[in-house]
Amino acid sequence: MLFSPKGRLGIFFLLAAAGLYLFACAGTPKKEQPYEIDVGFCISCHQERTPGLFQSWVESKHAKNGVHCITCHIDHQAASEQKSMVLPEKCGECHRKQLEEFKKARHSISFERMRIQGEYLGIPQEIRAAFCERCHMVEKRCNSCHSSHRFSLKEARDPDACSTCHLGPDHPYKEMYETSLHGTIYKMTQNPERAPRCITCHMPGGSHNSSFGIARGPAGTRSPVVDLKEIPISKEEQERRRAEMLNVCTGCHSRRFAQEQLENADQVKEAGFFLQEEGKKAIEEIAREGLLYPSVAERMPHPTEGRALVLADPQLYVGTSYMERLFFTMFKFHTIRVWKSGYHFSPAYTHGYGWTEMQLDLIDIREESEKLRELFKKEK
Amino acid sequence: MLFSPKGRLGIFFLLAAAGLYLFACAGTPKKEQPYEIDVGFCISCHQERTPGLFQSWVESKHAKNGVHCITCHIDHQAASEQKSMVLPEKCGECHRKQLEEFKKARHSISFERMRIQGEYLGIPQEIRAAFCERCHMVEKRCNSCHSSHRFSLKEARDPDACSTCHLGPDHPYKEMYETSLHGTIYKMTQNPERAPRCITCHMPGGSHNSSFGIARGPAGTRSPVVDLKEIPISKEEQERRRAEMLNVCTGCHSRRFAQEQLENADQVKEAGFFLQEEGKKAIEEIAREGLLYPSVAERMPHPTEGRALVLADPQLYVGTSYMERLFFTMFKFHTIRVWKSGYHFSPAYTHGYGWTEMQLDLIDIREESEKLRELFKKEK
Amino acid sequence: MLFSPKGRLGIFFLLAAAGLYLFACAGTPKKEQPYEIDVGFCISCHQERTPGLFQSWVESKHAKNGVHCITCHIDHQAASEQKSMVLPEKCGECHRKQLEEFKKARHSISFERMRIQGEYLGIPQEIRAAFCERCHMVEKRCNSCHSSHRFSLKEARDPDACSTCHLGPDHPYKEMYETSLHGTIYKMTQNPERAPRCITCHMPGGSHNSSFGIARGPAGTRSPVVDLKEIPISKEEQERRRAEMLNVCTGCHSRRFAQEQLENADQVKEAGFFLQEEGKKAIEEIAREGLLYPSVAERMPHPTEGRALVLADPQLYVGTSYMERLFFTMFKFHTIRVWKSGYHFSPAYTHGYGWTEMQLDLIDIREESEKLRELFKKEK
Repeated sequence: MLFSPKGRLGIFFLLAAAGLYLFACAGTPKKEQPYEIDVGFCISCHQERTPGLFQSWVESKHAKNGVHCITCHIDHQAASEQKSMVLPEKCGECHRKQLEEFKKARHSISFERMRIQGEYLGIPQEIRAAFCERCHMVEKRCNSCHSSHRFSLKEARDPDACSTCHLGPDHPYKEMYETSLHGTIYKMTQNPERAPRCITCHMPGGSHNSSFGIARGPAGTRSPVVDLKEIPISKEEQERRRAEMLNVCTGCHSRRFAQEQLENADQVKEAGFFLQEEGKKAIEEIAREGLLYPSVAERMPHPTEGRALVLADPQLYVGTSYMERLFFTMFKFHTIRVWKSGYHFSPAYTHGYGWTEMQLDLIDIREESEKLRELFKKEK
Repeated sequence: MLFSPKGRLGIFFLLAAAGLYLFACAGTPKKEQPYEIDVGFCISCHQERTPGLFQSWVESKHAKNGVHCITCHIDHQAASEQKSMVLPEKCGECHRKQLEEFKKARHSISFERMRIQGEYLGIPQEIRAAFCERCHMVEKRCNSCHSSHRFSLKEARDPDACSTCHLGPDHPYKEMYETSLHGTIYKMTQNPERAPRCITCHMPGGSHNSSFGIARGPAGTRSPVVDLKEIPISKEEQERRRAEMLNVCTGCHSRRFAQEQLENADQVKEAGFFLQEEGKKAIEEIAREGLLYPSVAERMPHPTEGRALVLADPQLYVGTSYMERLFFTMFKFHTIRVWKSGYHFSPAYTHGYGWTEMQLDLIDIREESEKLRELFKKEK
Repeated sequence: MLFSPKGRLGIFFLLAAAGLYLFACAGTPKKEQPYEIDVGFCISCHQERTPGLFQSWVESKHAKNGVHCITCHIDHQAASEQKSMVLPEKCGECHRKQLEEFKKARHSISFERMRIQGEYLGIPQEIRAAFCERCHMVEKRCNSCHSSHRFSLKEARDPDACSTCHLGPDHPYKEMYETSLHGTIYKMTQNPERAPRCITCHMPGGSHNSSFGIARGPAGTRSPVVDLKEIPISKEEQERRRAEMLNVCTGCHSRRFAQEQLENADQVKEAGFFLQEEGKKAIEEIAREGLLYPSVAERMPHPTEGRALVLADPQLYVGTSYMERLFFTMFKFHTIRVWKSGYHFSPAYTHGYGWTEMQLDLIDIREESEKLRELFKKEK
C-alpha cells in the first residue's frame, strides 16, 4: 500500500509537511531575523535561574498586558549586545509621550555630558562603572527610576526613587528635601496632597521633562540656565519657567508667599556665589604671584582644558595645588548647598552645612595665601 | 396704589430693610472693629486660590470644632500685618494651658535670643529668613511643630516634627536620636510604649515646657543650666530636674540603670569639655605671643563683644584667624556631639563623630601653633 | 480539746505544715541553690517598677512559651553579678544552633578584640561604656540584635537592627546600604523578595554566622580575610566563600551579572588601597627625613606597638604628628568607604564620599610634606 500511487503521494506530502515544520522550528539564520520563540522558552530557564527578577515581572503591569521578555529584550543575541540593557527608544515604542518629554530634559544627555568631564576621565577605566556611570546611565535606562522588572509607578513616584542618584556630597538634594518641612511632612503622611514630593515640583502631571521650571542658573542673570545645547536661555524663557514653577507652588500656597520664597532663594544663591568669587580671586592672586605649587606648568595637563588654571567645573580633585584643593571643597560641596537649599527650603543646608562652611573655606584660603607669602618671601 | 398711605408705608419699610441689609454687609470702619464677615467669604476665594491649604483645614479638628479663618486671622488687614502668621497669644486664647507651659520653655525666647547673636547679625539681612529665622521663629509660631493648617496632633508628636529644626551640624539631635537604640526601635515599631520619642523625655504628658528635665549645663556645676533670664539654676533645682527626668526613664528601666546611664552621660560631657578647654588654652597662648593674624586689633570688631578674642559662643565664623577657625569647628560642631550624645545614647556621635574629631582638632590646633612659632621666630 | 491525743496530733501536723511552708518560702542559703521562687514574685514588683520592660516581655514569644524572668536571670543575686546581662551561653541552652553559628562569626570575638585595641585603651576608663563598648558588647549580648524584652524576630530582621552599630564614620555600612538601589527599593517596599536587606546577604537562611561569604580582605590576595584566630584564610576558602555569596545574588540576578559586579567591587577596593599606600609612603619618607613632630621618640609610646610609627590600624588619633593625623582620616574614614561601598553598590560612597576624599587627602599629605621641607630646610 505504501508504494502505490496514492501511497507515494501520501509519503510526499508527509515529507513536505515534516520539512516545512522543521523549517519553521529552525527559524532563519540568526543575523537576518529573530528567532520565532515563545516567551515560555525564556520562562522555562529564567523562572529558575533568576527567580527574583522573574517574580518581579510576574507582578508587573507589563506581564498583565502581555509585555514580556521578547518584547523588550528580543533574544539572547540582541540582549547580550546591550548587556541586557533596554534603551529608552525601545520603551518609547509604546510610551511615546514619555520618551518625547524625556528627550527635552537634562537626564537625556547625562551620559554623554559625563563622558567628556575631566573628573570622569581621571578615574581609572575599570572602576568608572561603580562611580559616575551607575547614576549617569539614566540617559540610557528608563529603569533608573522605574526599577526593573516590577516597573512600579508607585515606586517611581516616591522621593526615594530620585534619591538613589540625587544625593551625596556634590548634589545633596535628597538631604535638603529630607531636612525641609516639605520632606518632613511628606515622610510623616506619605500624602502628596499634604506636602510635595520631588515629582510634584520637578515632573508635574507626570511629565518626563524633569528640567521643568528650572529658571535660574548658577549665578542669576550673569549665568542663566542653559538648554540642552548649552546655550543660555533667554530672559523671557527664564520668566516663563519661573511662572510655571509658581503654578505648582500655588497648589498649596498663596502667590505672594510662593513668589517671596523663590525670590528669597534667588538672593541666597547670589550671596553664595559672591562668597565663591572671593575664594576664586584669592587663588588667582596667588597664581599671579607665582606661589601655586605644583604650578600649572609643572603638572599634568587637564584632560579637556589643557595647561590652564581651572577653578570650579571642570576643576579636578587630583594633582592640583593645596589652594585649589581648598577651593574644590568650597565650590563642589559647599556652594551647591547654599545655591540649591534655598529652593528646597532646608535651613540646615543653607546655613550650617552651606554658608558657614563657605565662610570657613574663605578663612582657609586666605590663611593659606598668607602662609605661602610668608614662607616664600625670604626666597625673593 | 404705590403712593397711597399703605403704599408709602410699604415703601418706607422696604427702604429701611434695604438700608439695614446694606449696613450689615458693609460692616463697620476697619480700624475700629473687624468686618462682620462670614467664613464663607474666605472660602469662596481660598478654596480655589490656595486649595492645598484649604483642604488641610477642612480635615483638621479646628474645622470640625468651628475654628476657622476668621477665628485666627481675623481679616486680611490684620493678617497681612503679621504676614499671615498667627502668634502664640492668639492660639492661647483657647489653648491657655499649653501657652502657659510654652512660656516657661526656651522655645519662647528663641527669636529674641537669636536677634542678639553675633552670628546672626553677621548674615546679610535679606537672607536671614532662610538661615536662622526659619527655625528660631518657633517663639512666634505654634505651627512650627503643629504644621498648619492640618494642626495634626499625630504629626506634632512624631520625632520628625522636632527634627525639622533640631538637626544639622551645630545641633544634630535628630541624628543622635536616630543612631541610638531608642530611635532605632521607635523607627521600626512606631510604638512609644516600646521606645521613647522626643516628646516622651522632653515634653512628657504633652507639657509644652520643652525645657523639662534639663539639669546639666555645658560643663556640669561650673556652668549649670540657666533659666530664661540667663541666671544659673541652683543645685537644688538641678537635682529636682534630674529627678523629674529619671521618672521618665523609669517608665521602662530600673532606677539603678537609668541613674547610671545619665551619670555616665554627665562624665562624657565633662570629658568633652576638658578637651575643648585644651584647645582654648592653646589659642590663648598663641594670642599672648602675638601670633594670631589677623589680630583682634586688625579685624572688624565683634558685633556684641567688640575688640576681644572670642572663643566659643558667641564666636564668629567670619574674619577670624585660622587658629580660631579650627576652634570654631571644634566647639560648634564637635563638642556639642560629645556633650549631647551621651544623653541621647548614640555611640557613633559620642565617639567617631564627636570625641575622635575633637582629638583630631587638638592635633590641628597644636600643629598650627608650632607652625606659627616656626614661621615667625626668625622675625624676632 | 486542744491537748487531747487527737488535739496534740493535730497541733503537731499543723506545726509541721507551717514549718514545711516556711522552709519552702525561705528556700535554701543563697550560694548553694537558687531560691525556689515563682515568677509571680518578680512580676509583683517589676510590673510596677519597670512597666515598659514588663510589657515588652508580656508581648513576647518567650512569655507565650513559658520563658520568664527566672529562666534567664535566675534571681537577683545572679542577675546583679552580670548587671542584668544575659550571656549568649544562657540563650544557647535553648537556642543551641544559633549559638553554634554565632561562635563562628566575628561578632563572637568583638569585645575581646576591642579590649586590646590601642584606640580603646586610650579612652578614659569611666567613659568607655558610651563609646566602643555599647556596640562591641554584641559578643556578650544576644539582645544587641534581638532587643529585650520583646525579642521580636521581625525587628531583628530589619536593616535598622544592624544599623544601630554598623554605621558611623569608620564603618558607614548603614549609610552605604541606604544609598544603594538595594536599600532604596527595600525602604520603599519593605519586601525582601524585591530587594535584599542586611541578613539576606550576611545571614542567609537566618544563619547566625554573620561572617558568611566575606571572601576578600583589605587588599585582595596580599592581605586576605582572616579567621577568628587572625590567620589568613586560604585561596580555596576565599573562593568557596565567594561562591557561597554568589549563590545569594543569583536569587535575583544572573550569575554573569552578579560575578561581574563583585569582581568590579574587588577592583574598586584595590584602587582605594593603592591610594592609601601612596599616602603611607609620603609619610614614611617624611619620617625618614626626621621631619615628623612630635617624633615617635618624643611622644607617649603606643599602648600596644610601643615606640613605633603606626600607620593604619591600630593607629591612634591622639598625640601624633599632623601628617599622621591627615593619614588617620584617610585610612579610618575614607578608605573604608571605597573598600566596602563597591560591595554595597553605593555610588555616592564609592566616589564623592570615598575616592574623591582620598584624592584630596593625598593632596593634603603631599602639601604638608612640602611645607615641612620648606619650613625646616633653612635649619640644615
